[in-house]
Amino acid sequence: MRKLQCAKDEASLAPWAGRGNPHFHETFCRITAINVKRGLVGTDERRDVMAETGVLTAHDLAKRQREISVAEFFTKNRHLLGFDNPKRALLSAVKEAVDNSLDACEEARILPTVEVAVRQLAEDRFVIKVRDNGPGILKSQVPRIFGKLLYGSKFHRLRMARGQQGIGISAAGMYGQLTTAKPTTVISRCSASKPAYKCQLFIDSRTNEPKVVAEEEIQWDIERGTEVEIELLARYQKGRQSVDEYLYETFLANPHLTLRYQPPEGEPVSYERITEKLPAQPKEIRPHPYGVELGALLEIAERTKARNVKTFLMTEFCRVSERVATELLQKAGLPDTLRPSRLKRPEGEKLIEAIAQTKIMAPPSDCIVPIGEQYLQSTLESLVKADFYTAVTRSPSVYRGNPFLVEAALAYGGELPLDEPARVLRFANRVPLLYQQSACAITRSIATTVWKSYGVQQPGGSLPVGPLLIAVHIASVWVPFTSESKEAIAHYDEIIKEMKLALQECGRRLGRHIRKGRREAEAQRKRSYIEKYIPHIGIALRELLDLSEEQERRVCTRLGELLERSRS
Amino acid sequence: MRKLQCAKDEASLAPWAGRGNPHFHETFCRITAINVKRGLVGTDERRDVMAETGVLTAHDLAKRQREISVAEFFTKNRHLLGFDNPKRALLSAVKEAVDNSLDACEEARILPTVEVAVRQLAEDRFVIKVRDNGPGILKSQVPRIFGKLLYGSKFHRLRMARGQQGIGISAAGMYGQLTTAKPTTVISRCSASKPAYKCQLFIDSRTNEPKVVAEEEIQWDIERGTEVEIELLARYQKGRQSVDEYLYETFLANPHLTLRYQPPEGEPVSYERITEKLPAQPKEIRPHPYGVELGALLEIAERTKARNVKTFLMTEFCRVSERVATELLQKAGLPDTLRPSRLKRPEGEKLIEAIAQTKIMAPPSDCIVPIGEQYLQSTLESLVKADFYTAVTRSPSVYRGNPFLVEAALAYGGELPLDEPARVLRFANRVPLLYQQSACAITRSIATTVWKSYGVQQPGGSLPVGPLLIAVHIASVWVPFTSESKEAIAHYDEIIKEMKLALQECGRRLGRHIRKGRREAEAQRKRSYIEKYIPHIGIALRELLDLSEEQERRVCTRLGELLERSRS
Repeated sequence: MRKLQCAKDEASLAPWAGRGNPHFHETFCRITAINVKRGLVGTDERRDVMAETGVLTAHDLAKRQREISVAEFFTKNRHLLGFDNPKRALLSAVKEAVDNSLDACEEARILPTVEVAVRQLAEDRFVIKVRDNGPGILKSQVPRIFGKLLYGSKFHRLRMARGQQGIGISAAGMYGQLTTAKPTTVISRCSASKPAYKCQLFIDSRTNEPKVVAEEEIQWDIERGTEVEIELLARYQKGRQSVDEYLYETFLANPHLTLRYQPPEGEPVSYERITEKLPAQPKEIRPHPYGVELGALLEIAERTKARNVKTFLMTEFCRVSERVATELLQKAGLPDTLRPSRLKRPEGEKLIEAIAQTKIMAPPSDCIVPIGEQYLQSTLESLVKADFYTAVTRSPSVYRGNPFLVEAALAYGGELPLDEPARVLRFANRVPLLYQQSACAITRSIATTVWKSYGVQQPGGSLPVGPLLIAVHIASVWVPFTSESKEAIAHYDEIIKEMKLALQECGRRLGRHIRKGRREAEAQRKRSYIEKYIPHIGIALRELLDLSEEQERRVCTRLGELLERSRS
Repeated sequence: MRKLQCAKDEASLAPWAGRGNPHFHETFCRITAINVKRGLVGTDERRDVMAETGVLTAHDLAKRQREISVAEFFTKNRHLLGFDNPKRALLSAVKEAVDNSLDACEEARILPTVEVAVRQLAEDRFVIKVRDNGPGILKSQVPRIFGKLLYGSKFHRLRMARGQQGIGISAAGMYGQLTTAKPTTVISRCSASKPAYKCQLFIDSRTNEPKVVAEEEIQWDIERGTEVEIELLARYQKGRQSVDEYLYETFLANPHLTLRYQPPEGEPVSYERITEKLPAQPKEIRPHPYGVELGALLEIAERTKARNVKTFLMTEFCRVSERVATELLQKAGLPDTLRPSRLKRPEGEKLIEAIAQTKIMAPPSDCIVPIGEQYLQSTLESLVKADFYTAVTRSPSVYRGNPFLVEAALAYGGELPLDEPARVLRFANRVPLLYQQSACAITRSIATTVWKSYGVQQPGGSLPVGPLLIAVHIASVWVPFTSESKEAIAHYDEIIKEMKLALQECGRRLGRHIRKGRREAEAQRKRSYIEKYIPHIGIALRELLDLSEEQERRVCTRLGELLERSRS
């Protein structure tokens, strides 16, 4: 019996040698031997036989190893991108195009006017068309922006934006091509002095590269903007998860947006911007030291242009002043003059430790821009008639080095249904989230907030029940979604904590409103009770004191006045 | 005022021309004009100014467009892979390694013996080591299998396996490298006649390519197998989402597995295989015509080696006999001799329509292998002491052309807690799923099954409440997970339907058990009631008839016997 032995690092994994289980290796070898005897284990001699019977050796397996293109991957995993059924596919395609339009307009500081049309061609065939008045896209960029997954301008920047991944719109085109074999059509124009460029393209899913099938310069009566058109297998349905709802909520979260929408049936819809003021331009930031891990630190050090580690710290990270850099290097015991390329694992570990021990200012918050309490509250006011509205914008916080900010608003009472779970509106970087509510950190935050203490019913661990509408917005330089379809926010502790704090503040205000309402109702009840008896007292006094009707009336009036005064 | 006009396909999108909204373009142009006047719209002249103030034109945006490597993407989106916090990271790393080991062993028809060790180096530093007795990996393949995302043997085959994407183990290494800057270490050996190959590697996240930093041939006292070792930032914790739980449930779903586990603290754990019989080898299948979409059909036609469309249909798809192929082509009005390369969109559309109208046998089900009712039930029996167990394996069904199969089992009563929501065990292709329960189709299926009709309490829309343990297993050639971490199953209607059918069958059996239990309890209650009075009747009779004690005893015995007989 051969002893099973670790070739490397023997001492470091002593348990392998069988501590506490002396029969470990014996058994292992015995079973292996049995399997070889039984022909269950492949040996070189038997390879051919086994290949025939479907049994594979390392050689056979090696032949099957292949690279998988990201486009192939997402074709097979289309549900990750929001294309798992025809109804959701329609929404996802519109969403990706509109999000891109809004991002482009805001980056170019243009008040966005976006036009959306969804037209039905056959029972399950639709064509979507989204046009914006944005800055346009250079001819050379069009194919890759619309025909290559993981290509974009937003991924490598720490800055709040709707799009992040460079996947969405290409994925929509890929889904269209897969289901209808039609190309994506793009028209774009960058200025009035240049012609418009029109292009039709497919994605080659084997290589994840665009395949342009037609292109031309055309006359376009629009001075500047981009238009994308995709034909796809889809289903149109109104309701909570519809294109209509998405566009409406998008307007709510973007009061500076003018939106025209031609649904597949019925009259066109038009939303006019409420404000002519663009949201502040979010600033791009560098990573914050608190969010940097050892591996990332060494990678940045390898690529930096800084000549020494002090400049490296000051230029590659935010909130590292000369004073902070000096302090960090002192604590880490590293010389200021060390070359960044000499920063290896031991030095990096010391530096990471020094960062953890040093107080560094939180990252600047102008990289994220809230909707604002005022707009958020007016959003709810325009949506529903209620008795009470409130909104809270928290100050920015940080998860994994990424600044983020949470806003919450709620409406209570009025026309909201009495006995249903609260309705929840979710937004991330001003984009409404309509799917995967149960998987979202927003839902978790609402469900784990104790609503009973604010006077609202709540079955254990669920959403509160009552005439309640809750809206939560998270703005961040990088929103951690649970999937590429960007419909639910991952459960990071820091994020859930901030959400709960915002909800609790709203809840406390709601609690005061409900209690005040209850006190008033109680007082009202007592008052109407007494009021009911004043005439009877009047009659009794008249009979006792032999008063005239006039006197009785005066007594009643005085009693009424007294009651009034005692209450105020 | 200039008229906004669609340059292409004017007629096809009539709504754009303003149907139902004559002021559409007028308003659009007016607003644009206003914005230009206000300086809110970028024009060429103002580009420099705008760039300075952070406003971007198409040119500026173009400069920022960049390709994103899939490794960069997942580094930033690590929560998609199950690495969002140190506790989950530890589980995900072990899981990916163990899943790979099991797949490799089964493909090579080797009874798997897997050894797992988790060792703590510092408070938040761990090293995991997983070794199997599988077929080994060829030297040339090691770097890419462990150091490149989206590389593997399972993605392009329709065949049941634990791994599908070629992401998992490389992602675990990438996380380790990111948090500790240590390489992944792999040792592999394909046969006793060859030396073992040891290799240490990183992933270059900018290119998604492996970077081997050390490699050598070594002496290894193991004849054949693979070992992977990753150092990572992690947290070890026992409980429902722990490595311990994952390994235990893995053993439950794989009764042919022998597993040794050395936890970071305490004695090693050892699970011995219950059966020496490997699960049947799942067969690889070709796609089924019902699951093929137009785009995919044309793509396959472009690549096929078949000379004519008839052979094309028969060789590229499953369940297309010569008879079916002829029928399809007749319905589509296409000649048998048509070259596949001539299959363009119009022909493809006809063919897809013909497929929808033709009855084609369901795909073969030997591509998926269930755990089996017997093993599934014994799984629950070994897990918990209950009064009632049952298990159901459904016959295979199809979603999007992919065969799948659902199994469900439940345990009721006994030591299970009375007033808690049912505990749920989820499995996909024999892998236990421990995270994201609320986002999973299994949870949805259980929550939307009406348990009240089986005698179990259920608060509206939630899990049933009672002494209940439910296990559900889905086996498929392609399990649609909600994210790359493969923790929850997407909500495909066909899948939820099958799950509910399996649960309902279990439920009906449970209902019979509960009702029978209630009847028996009722009878028992009556009986003990009468039994209590027999002695009193005896005394009364003795006094009335002047019986001896012996006679009284006999009367009581007879009465007892009568009672017994009346019940049976």
